[in-house]
Amino acid sequence: MIFRKTAILGVGLLGGSLALAMREKGLTAEISGFGRSAENLEQARAKGIIDSCHPGDPAGAAAGADLVVFATGVSAFGQIARAIKGSLKAGSIQTDVGSLKGGLVYELEEMLPRFVGCHPIAGGERSGVGAATGRLFEGSKCIIARTGKSDPKAVEALEGLWRAVGCRTMFMDPLFHDEVYALVSHLPHLVAYALVNTVGEADGDLIDFAGKGFRDSTRIAMSAPEIWRDICRMNGKNILRFADAFKKQLERLEDLIGGPEDAEALEREFDSARRLRRRLENEDNQ
Amino acid sequence: MIFRKTAILGVGLLGGSLALAMREKGLTAEISGFGRSAENLEQARAKGIIDSCHPGDPAGAAAGADLVVFATGVSAFGQIARAIKGSLKAGSIQTDVGSLKGGLVYELEEMLPRFVGCHPIAGGERSGVGAATGRLFEGSKCIIARTGKSDPKAVEALEGLWRAVGCRTMFMDPLFHDEVYALVSHLPHLVAYALVNTVGEADGDLIDFAGKGFRDSTRIAMSAPEIWRDICRMNGKNILRFADAFKKQLERLEDLIGGPEDAEALEREFDSARRLRRRLENEDNQ
Repeated sequence: MIFRKTAILGVGLLGGSLALAMREKGLTAEISGFGRSAENLEQARAKGIIDSCHPGDPAGAAAGADLVVFATGVSAFGQIARAIKGSLKAGSIQTDVGSLKGGLVYELEEMLPRFVGCHPIAGGERSGVGAATGRLFEGSKCIIARTGKSDPKAVEALEGLWRAVGCRTMFMDPLFHDEVYALVSHLPHLVAYALVNTVGEADGDLIDFAGKGFRDSTRIAMSAPEIWRDICRMNGKNILRFADAFKKQLERLEDLIGGPEDAEALEREFDSARRLRRRLENEDNQ
Repeated sequence: MIFRKTAILGVGLLGGSLALAMREKGLTAEISGFGRSAENLEQARAKGIIDSCHPGDPAGAAAGADLVVFATGVSAFGQIARAIKGSLKAGSIQTDVGSLKGGLVYELEEMLPRFVGCHPIAGGERSGVGAATGRLFEGSKCIIARTGKSDPKAVEALEGLWRAVGCRTMFMDPLFHDEVYALVSHLPHLVAYALVNTVGEADGDLIDFAGKGFRDSTRIAMSAPEIWRDICRMNGKNILRFADAFKKQLERLEDLIGGPEDAEALEREFDSARRLRRRLENEDNQ
């Protein structure tokens, strides 16, 4: 057992799945849960995901915990950190599972004694504790956003935790993390939302003619709007930069489609995308 | 048995899969194959997908066939139609499995006695006869692009064929088909290619940090470049129109991310996309 008591702040897909995985692997003996909704927490307790419910009371959930996991939407982290910082057990470790690291990690490590930001690359378009599963993290990457101020023992313990639930861990600078994920995650979400809205604007009923390609390419447009609203606002600068780069790439293709016959150039563009994308197929992890 | 002899012109994923499905369901007794590459045809024969090989000789493959299926890239259809039209068996039916209907259907029904264009919505990013499977069409839609000139008996026979291999058939005007699929298939392909190239331009190695969301949303960027080059060129006008509409939707989101705080409006945009996209999850077909 790595942590006697664990506090899950936000018992949704990620928080609930981590709780289940930690139980299944014997990594913790007791789990407390915080959330806005008493009903959601009771549902999680009924399912055996958490042992105690602390609706609206993150400090109550965090009290006595050896590990405190921020698993709400990222926009709530600052407020929760202020609420719990006086109630933390000495020697406890704090972490999160959010999609943004950047300034957030620096802000939280100022407030909390042993905070190390983490980002398991798992979850997708599902949300809510009803979708939680102890196997969610198996085969996923998990970024540990270590900084110069990170406590080495906390880093080591978290590395052990994520590996134990099935992740491949890697270290990344928090600010670089937000650039990378603006490119490989936040921009694709924005594009998927825009693609579906393009169909909606033309004639929503036409979506019924879509095949597997459209389904796959827009699956992430089913991601929780409030979560993605916050990610987009908080990482806006990086996202807008890559959205511009994306539009330039799209316009390159449009020029080759509409311009004078140069079928070879268009095929070369498609081929370079195919070759790069295929790299992900050779990964053994998903 | 619906057709004694079937000619598959182009033995790749779609042609090969149709051949396998027809054999498995007892819909044909003999299958001839045409293609550019003798090696590919021999591979298909060795696997029991076709019975006879006619490399470079579509007329030889079509001779004596009761059903002739165009399954090469769409840009080759015109030339193949000219090559086979003198060798068709009286009463034979001609069809295709291409992603474009529009002008192509009108062109082919001028040249061939009983041509009816079809488009099974199946295949995705895979290609080549090595990926062929008799189950490819199960649960897919198949568009039958019937026109005022379509032979009713041919339409009926093709409807029976596609249903027998597992499709839900629907009728659609050929020109309308090309608008619809520019929106729900061709544009998403273009977007997926552009997304991957955006990563490639920034730093291709960053693709290794991508998670399931990126993988799903760019899977179709592995589609065969030469096939998609032809589709994009031949359906360029429709695709460019929807690419413009898509860029406007994307820019709406960008404005809401970068502009003055209006988190609710951004969330509403995401939510409308989510609600429309969820319609596809309620389908029972895939």
